[in-house]
Amino acid sequence: MYRVGIDLGGTNIKVGIVDETQRILAQDSVPTNVNRPYQKVIEDMANLSSEILEKLGLSKEGLKGIGIGSPGTVDAKDGIVAYSNNFGWENIPLVAEMRKYFDCPIEISNDANCAALGEVKAGAAKDIANAVLLTLGTGVGGGVILDGKVFEGAHAGGAELGHTSLIFGGERCTCGRRGCVEAYVSASALIRDARRAAADCPESEMNRLCSGNLNAMNGKIPFDAAESGDVAAKRVVEKYIIYLGEAIANFVNIFRPDVVLLSGGVCNQGEKLTKPVSEYIKGKCFAGEKAFIPQVRCAILGNNAGIIGAANLI
Amino acid sequence: MYRVGIDLGGTNIKVGIVDETQRILAQDSVPTNVNRPYQKVIEDMANLSSEILEKLGLSKEGLKGIGIGSPGTVDAKDGIVAYSNNFGWENIPLVAEMRKYFDCPIEISNDANCAALGEVKAGAAKDIANAVLLTLGTGVGGGVILDGKVFEGAHAGGAELGHTSLIFGGERCTCGRRGCVEAYVSASALIRDARRAAADCPESEMNRLCSGNLNAMNGKIPFDAAESGDVAAKRVVEKYIIYLGEAIANFVNIFRPDVVLLSGGVCNQGEKLTKPVSEYIKGKCFAGEKAFIPQVRCAILGNNAGIIGAANLI
Repeated sequence: MYRVGIDLGGTNIKVGIVDETQRILAQDSVPTNVNRPYQKVIEDMANLSSEILEKLGLSKEGLKGIGIGSPGTVDAKDGIVAYSNNFGWENIPLVAEMRKYFDCPIEISNDANCAALGEVKAGAAKDIANAVLLTLGTGVGGGVILDGKVFEGAHAGGAELGHTSLIFGGERCTCGRRGCVEAYVSASALIRDARRAAADCPESEMNRLCSGNLNAMNGKIPFDAAESGDVAAKRVVEKYIIYLGEAIANFVNIFRPDVVLLSGGVCNQGEKLTKPVSEYIKGKCFAGEKAFIPQVRCAILGNNAGIIGAANLI
Repeated sequence: MYRVGIDLGGTNIKVGIVDETQRILAQDSVPTNVNRPYQKVIEDMANLSSEILEKLGLSKEGLKGIGIGSPGTVDAKDGIVAYSNNFGWENIPLVAEMRKYFDCPIEISNDANCAALGEVKAGAAKDIANAVLLTLGTGVGGGVILDGKVFEGAHAGGAELGHTSLIFGGERCTCGRRGCVEAYVSASALIRDARRAAADCPESEMNRLCSGNLNAMNGKIPFDAAESGDVAAKRVVEKYIIYLGEAIANFVNIFRPDVVLLSGGVCNQGEKLTKPVSEYIKGKCFAGEKAFIPQVRCAILGNNAGIIGAANLI
């Protein structure tokens, strides 16, 4: 049994063939080049899928199906990308277009949902039925798995966990509101706060670590500087952990999942991130330790989560 | 076909017999008197259920089952009230205790979940599969119905929508955190803000409407005063609508339901509440009007929602 899993990203289209043991038999990628007609993007998705199948000597006929993780607001039922700001897409009939090339079952979901499903099927939450994933990247994506299946919401545009309030009226969010979770716990938000702190405190180690060029700030620098004892960096990291902890407590109070997963570059911090966050949420989840408090874990599949998750939509 | 629906409240135990058309054939109530052994509370629930059945001439044997809506953190799977702050309850085996009196199927859920289910089965969201209900009372309860069924979360203590951040670090919440939705959109929060505004502005109409006694402030006064043109009251109402709109947008971004229901005394304001809130969320839900934006409606069943919803757990 084999399925195609496609991770449609802003930079690359990643395609993998996934077997029944959740192993990726082969994978490859091509540039997305979003600024062209969507038909061309989808043609490339289809061609790359065919090529990899061919290389593996696998027939199109034996293919169980194709799953696609797409950014944006995805209408999984109708197979449509309702809206993607980054792609400039509106009501793109992704499944119908893909069906011009493949006659098998084709499913789509939001990319963060696919990453969550991948981790549940083969990664940090393997064999766990209920998980919430936060992707801490340029933005914050949310993926919710309930009873082993992607939770889509009743209409397209659910599970947008990054676009819920943390501090209403606070930092501007990419969605147009102010104070969303994304505006405080994304990698971009961490970098913004580290830049500000470094600018306010010229003697901070963070300035040295980005060679005095605040444009070179990244999400690792405040953690590294904090570890070396830098007070300004410590404050940035502590605040980030509080913001993340508050956001996680919100999602625990809503979904009460078995585990909460975090993905993105900041997860390279491993226990330096998950330990204080786990400690923090104990006092913040509703009913405290009188109710179930999920573990907070880092995702482990990296880029493969999206491919494996997409394949598991089938 | 008939079921018993029980709404276990802080003041009263309300019991009703509900038929297959969702009609309450008869109902009655007794005081809860929470400060006694839980066995006594449950004995009263059982006795009142038996009495009403007897009065209607309905046999215990023909009873399809008993559903109970309880405050607090309810473990629906195990039939346990894990924790109720108001009741001082911890790990109360509600279903097992009730089974001493009745041999039929017995189910429990959180009271706000039951209210939501009642409205979906017989009220403001009749024949609608997916709804989110916010009970705007002393606190803020959350009830989520997905595909016609109560969404419980994977572990007890899910769907606590009132205990998610609106303004982290802001007003103190009953749950121990600061800035929860409950701390801004509960009736208590509205009254608090009206009191503050009236105190800050002695010439405000709100002072006259509570006869100069701020302890007599209620949730209706700021709306009435605002309608008469009182500037301070208008500001209170406008802020309340913004807070409520932000909270609703959060839950839309998570659940993307067909409708959002509001219940509690403030819903007596009807369209004065739902119209501006509906307008507000259009610009706040993720992807705006490019995605589905649910209607905001007031619940219509009042106290009966809890009884009907509880009966429908069966």
